[in-house]
Amino acid sequence: MQLEGIYPIVPTPFLDHGEVDFTSIERLIDFMAQKKVHGLAILGALGEGHKLTDQERSNVIRTYRDPLPKGMDLVVGARSPATDPAMTMVSRARDLGADAILLGPHNLQKDLPLLEYYQQVSEAADIACIIHDYPAVTGITLSVELISRIYDSCANIDYIKLEDPPTGVKMQALAKTAGPGLGVFGALGGMYALEELELGAVGIMTGFVYAELLVQLFDLTLKQQWPQAAELFYDFLPLNRWEFQPGIGVSIRKQVLKQLGVFSTAKVRHPGPDADPKTLAQLFRIVEHLRRKGYLLEI
Amino acid sequence: MQLEGIYPIVPTPFLDHGEVDFTSIERLIDFMAQKKVHGLAILGALGEGHKLTDQERSNVIRTYRDPLPKGMDLVVGARSPATDPAMTMVSRARDLGADAILLGPHNLQKDLPLLEYYQQVSEAADIACIIHDYPAVTGITLSVELISRIYDSCANIDYIKLEDPPTGVKMQALAKTAGPGLGVFGALGGMYALEELELGAVGIMTGFVYAELLVQLFDLTLKQQWPQAAELFYDFLPLNRWEFQPGIGVSIRKQVLKQLGVFSTAKVRHPGPDADPKTLAQLFRIVEHLRRKGYLLEI
Amino acid sequence: MQLEGIYPIVPTPFLDHGEVDFTSIERLIDFMAQKKVHGLAILGALGEGHKLTDQERSNVIRTYRDPLPKGMDLVVGARSPATDPAMTMVSRARDLGADAILLGPHNLQKDLPLLEYYQQVSEAADIACIIHDYPAVTGITLSVELISRIYDSCANIDYIKLEDPPTGVKMQALAKTAGPGLGVFGALGGMYALEELELGAVGIMTGFVYAELLVQLFDLTLKQQWPQAAELFYDFLPLNRWEFQPGIGVSIRKQVLKQLGVFSTAKVRHPGPDADPKTLAQLFRIVEHLRRKGYLLEI
Amino acid sequence: MQLEGIYPIVPTPFLDHGEVDFTSIERLIDFMAQKKVHGLAILGALGEGHKLTDQERSNVIRTYRDPLPKGMDLVVGARSPATDPAMTMVSRARDLGADAILLGPHNLQKDLPLLEYYQQVSEAADIACIIHDYPAVTGITLSVELISRIYDSCANIDYIKLEDPPTGVKMQALAKTAGPGLGVFGALGGMYALEELELGAVGIMTGFVYAELLVQLFDLTLKQQWPQAAELFYDFLPLNRWEFQPGIGVSIRKQVLKQLGVFSTAKVRHPGPDADPKTLAQLFRIVEHLRRKGYLLEI
Repeated sequence: MQLEGIYPIVPTPFLDHGEVDFTSIERLIDFMAQKKVHGLAILGALGEGHKLTDQERSNVIRTYRDPLPKGMDLVVGARSPATDPAMTMVSRARDLGADAILLGPHNLQKDLPLLEYYQQVSEAADIACIIHDYPAVTGITLSVELISRIYDSCANIDYIKLEDPPTGVKMQALAKTAGPGLGVFGALGGMYALEELELGAVGIMTGFVYAELLVQLFDLTLKQQWPQAAELFYDFLPLNRWEFQPGIGVSIRKQVLKQLGVFSTAKVRHPGPDADPKTLAQLFRIVEHLRRKGYLLEI
Repeated sequence: MQLEGIYPIVPTPFLDHGEVDFTSIERLIDFMAQKKVHGLAILGALGEGHKLTDQERSNVIRTYRDPLPKGMDLVVGARSPATDPAMTMVSRARDLGADAILLGPHNLQKDLPLLEYYQQVSEAADIACIIHDYPAVTGITLSVELISRIYDSCANIDYIKLEDPPTGVKMQALAKTAGPGLGVFGALGGMYALEELELGAVGIMTGFVYAELLVQLFDLTLKQQWPQAAELFYDFLPLNRWEFQPGIGVSIRKQVLKQLGVFSTAKVRHPGPDADPKTLAQLFRIVEHLRRKGYLLEI
Repeated sequence: MQLEGIYPIVPTPFLDHGEVDFTSIERLIDFMAQKKVHGLAILGALGEGHKLTDQERSNVIRTYRDPLPKGMDLVVGARSPATDPAMTMVSRARDLGADAILLGPHNLQKDLPLLEYYQQVSEAADIACIIHDYPAVTGITLSVELISRIYDSCANIDYIKLEDPPTGVKMQALAKTAGPGLGVFGALGGMYALEELELGAVGIMTGFVYAELLVQLFDLTLKQQWPQAAELFYDFLPLNRWEFQPGIGVSIRKQVLKQLGVFSTAKVRHPGPDADPKTLAQLFRIVEHLRRKGYLLEI
Repeated sequence: MQLEGIYPIVPTPFLDHGEVDFTSIERLIDFMAQKKVHGLAILGALGEGHKLTDQERSNVIRTYRDPLPKGMDLVVGARSPATDPAMTMVSRARDLGADAILLGPHNLQKDLPLLEYYQQVSEAADIACIIHDYPAVTGITLSVELISRIYDSCANIDYIKLEDPPTGVKMQALAKTAGPGLGVFGALGGMYALEELELGAVGIMTGFVYAELLVQLFDLTLKQQWPQAAELFYDFLPLNRWEFQPGIGVSIRKQVLKQLGVFSTAKVRHPGPDADPKTLAQLFRIVEHLRRKGYLLEI
């Protein structure tokens, strides 16, 4: 399994009464496929994966799998406080068609138990696994040394989604310690995407409704057109920055997707929180600004 | 539903390969029933509730429910990062026969969302609910004011399991703010059980293999025999203190239960950790000491 | 004391052997004065205020006070785990010429003790005080209700430096609860400066070497030229975002100031950490980009 | 410098208006000297060291140094977010007569910067240093591997005050990794003192007003009279447990010392908190119980 390119982390749509909204998922797949993204990453933090029952998780994976166009990978987020249920979770995801697992750590901040967890769970997954390194959300810090040990000893682990800023510093340290074989995905809402790609990131895996901008960025960097890439990135940074706001990032994306006709509702499972109208208005002002600059963004 | 007395928080037994060990559960019920405890609290932190799949949770509840002697209550722990799955969780527990729910908070440290969560989940439960106030494990602090608001506005919530030390200070504040109707269970391994009962606690709900000592303590306090209660409590404090050690508390209890022939294995789901032989030896030395003093404790 | 406009949070320069570098402070004052900032905020988190002895703090305040041009305010950061030493700290700062205090909370996450702290310390200060609301650094969250109570009951507190994102949401809630009299300074490296000013912020108080850009932004918003303000802000956002990186933000600013001939060294007091050459190169690439766009930025 | 035995961590007395109460310090020295403790540890967490100005710290050290009886060691607590001020702090403590430093970590949870801090600060101290390993208070976890590296590379560091429970597990791991040369002091209010001494602890360094009980315990273990040591420890455990309560531990000790005529006031520097009358009454009930058992404890 070779992973490369732009993988939006997507939110999970709900109906007004709280059930998963499977119809909106199908529209979301079309919406993202048209942007030429390389795959979708579901059931991550933005996907409210931790707010679903086991049964709902399975149903969501199935709903994504079947209609997903050929050539687009399905990455499924998984994380558990214990190794056994994590193994069950990843096996089920694989059986339901996941191409890769985005694997968050358990809750114990100790190197050896974390190493063992990644070893056992990635082996149970039996498909490509991506280390999810996101201390602000998981509460767990993975040192460069630990990541290198995980990478060295886990046949199925060749990638990391790196969200422990400053990311450039950690990428350089990982390149030295783990070596170039460990593929790094940038994330954090794309806040440092240009610099991460310049340092050799294999792609960006993050929430961003206007993912076509990341696709264009990635294509320019593939062609080594760095000045154009920088120009593009600097242009859209105000927008992805605004989507990425702590706490309300899930709600913002859902409200935009509802506005664009992709989601039926913008419902976030309680305890939310929801973004406010002013925040949405400010977002669309940035989109308008980009449209005036010539970017063909939907509104 | 009137809850009162001693409710051991019990660990969940596993077989060597990691599956739930249903036979040991049945032995555990007998073991605890002989100690005349007033009920069992399952799937709490000590019960590794967060390390089970939804399916395993259901199976465990069923296995406890059927053989539980008449007169013993079944309290089931529940906690989720979101309100919807918590509602599903408590409804299922009730349908499977839970008498009461021990309800931990979600992960967002904000008063209003916590209040709403307790309102909605306790209503969905439709049986007695106990607020689980344990910041060291949940990471969430519930202020006296918030607890009082929850108690005032939730018909099914009449109890709190209070593990936010110093517990005496919080009990006195709650008595003033929430009033005497809110029943407080002491916990924290029984470290402050005497003083909590003196301040009006309705019982103790905590992990302690030698739960008969808490039953005796509770009976003495019911009869207002405070000097004898104090004598007893001071005698056994070295033991419950030793069981209650952070991190390895689950493993200690399982190893003791294995030694006593109740559990088939002492397996803790990874990432554990396990208690060491020295710690066990030190525990049994305390038991020996109590036996020499005349306490009829199994060994 | 009326505070309004752009107040750079400035780093404290050190000599190679670790002593405070008073000569560089004088150059920094000139450097910032030429940018027409409205004042300087010293000894904040970026100023490594917590890494100085009491004696060094006094010397630093003195060194800033004397040469500061008329019309520029001196804001001095203060924070302590206890109320008594905080009172000593702010009194001394006032005696040494501080115009205002940027007052961080103590370490206890409880409303009443935080209220009392702000009451007693702001009274001891006897000059304008600004609440420093920065959970990521202080570990303390100040609710909208608590901030309103502090504002209501402290005659010397009329401002807050708000760094608890999403800041727009909190600003709107504060406007409703505390009322419009509480002046809000945006911060967080200026990441949301445009939107904060649009919502009525009285200024921006944050670390940014190229502070003239914030001054221009502020002037445009004063004149209600919002489209031009947005254009400017979107242009420089890549730059202030890059300066603001977690952990290495202090080092980045010091290295830039050294490169520009303002600081003699880029020394950060151990345990640092230091920014790497690649990060600096990436920063100056952004500056070059802005220069090509016509911004007269030093390099 | 050979450290061994019982070193009470002592609180710092204040007058009603908040100034340090030097006369009470002198009475405290007499009070503790009569209990035959081996030294005093001042300006630790219990000593509110973090709530004093630099000047007050110096005055407190001086006040302890001069009247301290020959043969009693003076251990001085020190901790800072940065290496430079920590070096200043320990040098000053040494110049004022400290025999040893109890050295807490800085605030950055990274191995290399912590190692460098301990290396530089212990070298600057130029006297014996004790690593203070207390995650619940410092927020910093020191792994067994890191402690061993610190011990190996710092000539002045031969001791650790170990308060990272379960302490028995960590002591055994340290004995294996760092070797037997690293002297371990038990602490945590003496909650596990017996078991720690059994595992080879060189002493106990913790807050306990009735320190003569720890002295007796230590003497019995020196003479290898383990059954008597256990009997004694089990007897007084209810008491030291009660003194050790989180948050109010400082206030409890001060109120007891006031009751015993040692301190003029029980003032804790704001934000406190203070212990309540009920908690004090419960404490003295335990003392009465021990007196009835034949222990000659003051009341």
